[in-house]
Amino acid sequence: MTSENQTMTMIMSLDARGATEPRAVAPQTDIVGVDDAVVRAEAASRVLAASSRADRARLLRALASALEARGAEIIAAADRETALGVPRLTGELARTSFQLRHFAEVVEDGHYLAATIDHADPDASPAPRPDLRRMLVPIGPVAVFSASNFPLAFSVAGGDTASAIAAGNAVVVKAHSGHPLTSMLTARALRAGAAEAGFPDDVVTVVFGTRAGVDLITHPLVAAGAFTGSTAGGRALFDLAAARPVPIPFYGELGSINALVVTDAALAERSAEIAAGLAASFTLGAGQFCTKPGLVLVPAGAAGDALAESVREAASQVEPAPMLNSRVRDGWSASIATLTASPHATTLLHGDEPGALAAGVVLVSMEARDVIAAGADALAFEECFGPSTLLVRYTTTAELDEVVRLVPGSLTGTVHGGSEEEHGASVAAHAYRALAERCGRVLWNQFPTGVSVTWAMQHGGPYPATTAAGSTSVGASAILRFLRPVAFQNAPDLLLPAELRDDNPTGVPRRVDGRLDPTPEEL
Amino acid sequence: MTSENQTMTMIMSLDARGATEPRAVAPQTDIVGVDDAVVRAEAASRVLAASSRADRARLLRALASALEARGAEIIAAADRETALGVPRLTGELARTSFQLRHFAEVVEDGHYLAATIDHADPDASPAPRPDLRRMLVPIGPVAVFSASNFPLAFSVAGGDTASAIAAGNAVVVKAHSGHPLTSMLTARALRAGAAEAGFPDDVVTVVFGTRAGVDLITHPLVAAGAFTGSTAGGRALFDLAAARPVPIPFYGELGSINALVVTDAALAERSAEIAAGLAASFTLGAGQFCTKPGLVLVPAGAAGDALAESVREAASQVEPAPMLNSRVRDGWSASIATLTASPHATTLLHGDEPGALAAGVVLVSMEARDVIAAGADALAFEECFGPSTLLVRYTTTAELDEVVRLVPGSLTGTVHGGSEEEHGASVAAHAYRALAERCGRVLWNQFPTGVSVTWAMQHGGPYPATTAAGSTSVGASAILRFLRPVAFQNAPDLLLPAELRDDNPTGVPRRVDGRLDPTPEEL
Repeated sequence: MTSENQTMTMIMSLDARGATEPRAVAPQTDIVGVDDAVVRAEAASRVLAASSRADRARLLRALASALEARGAEIIAAADRETALGVPRLTGELARTSFQLRHFAEVVEDGHYLAATIDHADPDASPAPRPDLRRMLVPIGPVAVFSASNFPLAFSVAGGDTASAIAAGNAVVVKAHSGHPLTSMLTARALRAGAAEAGFPDDVVTVVFGTRAGVDLITHPLVAAGAFTGSTAGGRALFDLAAARPVPIPFYGELGSINALVVTDAALAERSAEIAAGLAASFTLGAGQFCTKPGLVLVPAGAAGDALAESVREAASQVEPAPMLNSRVRDGWSASIATLTASPHATTLLHGDEPGALAAGVVLVSMEARDVIAAGADALAFEECFGPSTLLVRYTTTAELDEVVRLVPGSLTGTVHGGSEEEHGASVAAHAYRALAERCGRVLWNQFPTGVSVTWAMQHGGPYPATTAAGSTSVGASAILRFLRPVAFQNAPDLLLPAELRDDNPTGVPRRVDGRLDPTPEEL
Repeated sequence: MTSENQTMTMIMSLDARGATEPRAVAPQTDIVGVDDAVVRAEAASRVLAASSRADRARLLRALASALEARGAEIIAAADRETALGVPRLTGELARTSFQLRHFAEVVEDGHYLAATIDHADPDASPAPRPDLRRMLVPIGPVAVFSASNFPLAFSVAGGDTASAIAAGNAVVVKAHSGHPLTSMLTARALRAGAAEAGFPDDVVTVVFGTRAGVDLITHPLVAAGAFTGSTAGGRALFDLAAARPVPIPFYGELGSINALVVTDAALAERSAEIAAGLAASFTLGAGQFCTKPGLVLVPAGAAGDALAESVREAASQVEPAPMLNSRVRDGWSASIATLTASPHATTLLHGDEPGALAAGVVLVSMEARDVIAAGADALAFEECFGPSTLLVRYTTTAELDEVVRLVPGSLTGTVHGGSEEEHGASVAAHAYRALAERCGRVLWNQFPTGVSVTWAMQHGGPYPATTAAGSTSVGASAILRFLRPVAFQNAPDLLLPAELRDDNPTGVPRRVDGRLDPTPEEL
């Protein structure tokens, strides 16, 4: 064992538009720093776990307010680091603080605890039954890996952080290399907000650097991981989480193709509307959305030709926009080169790309029969992260079926059908059901970009869309990722959580002796 | 590539008592056989997924009745293969059919679907909201790995099978090598029951052999695994499930130490009762229970000495019982040899072992300070599967604390405290809370063996107790393992599951626009 001098690598904040000089933000976090962050997060987790739901709701609202109070500074940093623009980032900050407040409501509501009481029953069949009371409790410190494309809503103050804290766990966030300054400023705001609410500021800590991410997910005290990013990066972290001596759940959102099916009946009714909506959806935010429709099944023939032409025309009007950073831009170039070089691809549009970071809109077409002949490999392209989509032209319902069967697990699937196609036997209904088997959210006559923060949202899906198809990273149910059940058997009142005492002092909805309390009036 | 002749290996049913000759049950299932079973399970899963909850409840009750109709034959085979005895197996069959019927109630109730509706709201803040409706849907074919020690309740017709079918998925069960004939007869009964209920008999299929288990968990169409067994075997399958090109969840119940803490106050009040209960609990079924208390923290001093002596005396009265099979018996011998050879161990009892398969009761004692000095390794013994327990004598609360901190994740943790110890500051209360951090079920003044099938049961816990601390394998919530959420956006009524239509034709409890329906009257 020799002692080595270590070079301290600085994490730099770059100007995505190249207009200002790089700025040093912090040294890369070494393994001692990661350990320190996790140990402090563990202590903060104990405080959170012991806090009442009312106090935790207050904390979440304080975090939202603290974020808003420093919003201008954070948005300026994010705009400089990502080039996403102030209007979009202003909206994203509003969404992010709304999300923190929404989780405050979820926590107050308390239904997420799944509180269940079975009183002792010495006469139960097939055997006497003890008093059993079960609810969900926090799991412990959560490692959050933030996303390049949402520097606010899926990063330090994003849904993973909000839901982990709502559940009663502190987080250690690995800052994204694309927006370290934004990450640091956001963490500073949240830590101040926590302290103002009377909680430890260590409910949120940020660490920097790829190596720190590895040290974080393999730290023995970390209880779960949450990630939004690339398939390669997410799978590498998932593999590390699974290979630990004590494996932990890893909720990774990786890549998603988001197939969209258009039927002839839909085109007969709304061709222009579909073309405009589709062009807007796949080019939104320079196509840097995880729900971007990346594969569009369009009928062969004149109506489909007309749609393709309208999409091409609408998309060609979209101003080229700078991408998030040069790594994203390089990845996009490589994907597009692969896609357009396919012998089956016809490039309908390849827009201008003024400036090193700009991405021109790309529209490519293939025949369904060629895709089918190539098999699963044809659609096993890496998600093209940028303003492109692939039209696949199908001549028969059988072809449509076969292509849908090749679609990998996705966050979303969409069908645009005709008004007479809502009945079960239609082509559109058939496609809708087939997509529901491989997606987390299926849309009818709408577009998948845009993910509402609501009780019913599902943002997840079968692999590779996520590493945990049973979970969501957006919406109220995201809290369930960071909890585990405990049953208390024969416990005296003083040793029970308030939610499991007979008198139900905090008024949570429960199941008592098999019956929902309150009881459904309809039943 | 050369074609090879494969030797067909027969799976043999052995008489656990050696009284009758081995019987050939079936050939080991080769990879073609596994593929065939999974493909048929996938087709059956589609039928189940499309079935109404009412029909699925009827199916579960038909499976229970079919099991009971062939109960005598199944119990006879299980007794021959496991030596567990007819009375115990009769009770286990009753529990198994009760469990199938309990899941019928869970399915009828429908609350498990977490049905949630958010109507469209164009005025929503921070952004307009589409119509979103979310519920849980079946995931697809489930691979079930059955347990040696519960040939009925945790095997072909056990909780994994019952909950997977309740959720709407067919299962392929890898029969345990210890009871292949029982497995085959059980599967035959279930398949007949399914056919009588108008469902495909392929809702349950059995495969045989270790290699078949590997082929099963790595089959592309298998959507999840469920396992009860050893830490080594479970971890190997977990690793295979995680390393697949498309990883799948693997719900493994592995090893559990099930610490039990006794305080001085408890001994002052109930020493004889605790001794009798403890001796009965750790020797129940020859100690072959996953919830056997394997580590008992007892105060140093006269009261603790008296307890140890009473336990020794009570345990020495327990008749030596045959273990499940020679592999289990060999594992037990090796574990006990390791434990008793420790320089810190004092062997208080090592009972007679008449017959090759019999296990004599073993009681060992150590000082807490020695356990603490040895660190985590001291308690990192493989779960001693058999009629043994280790008494650890603590002199101070600090020692008690430190030993509890060394306890690996467990299914259960138990505290026996005094009647004045229910308040939060007592030694017993402190231990109870500490155990709750590392166990799935925490008991007060009872014993952990015996796992009731109820709404509130939690049978799971942090690793190595299970590979998925967020889940349970017993109780109503076990169904959640085999479901995934789907959100339907802007879907016409005809494309929605009945449970998500506005008129709620099947009357499931739901959340609508943020409010529980029905609404808690208390709030």
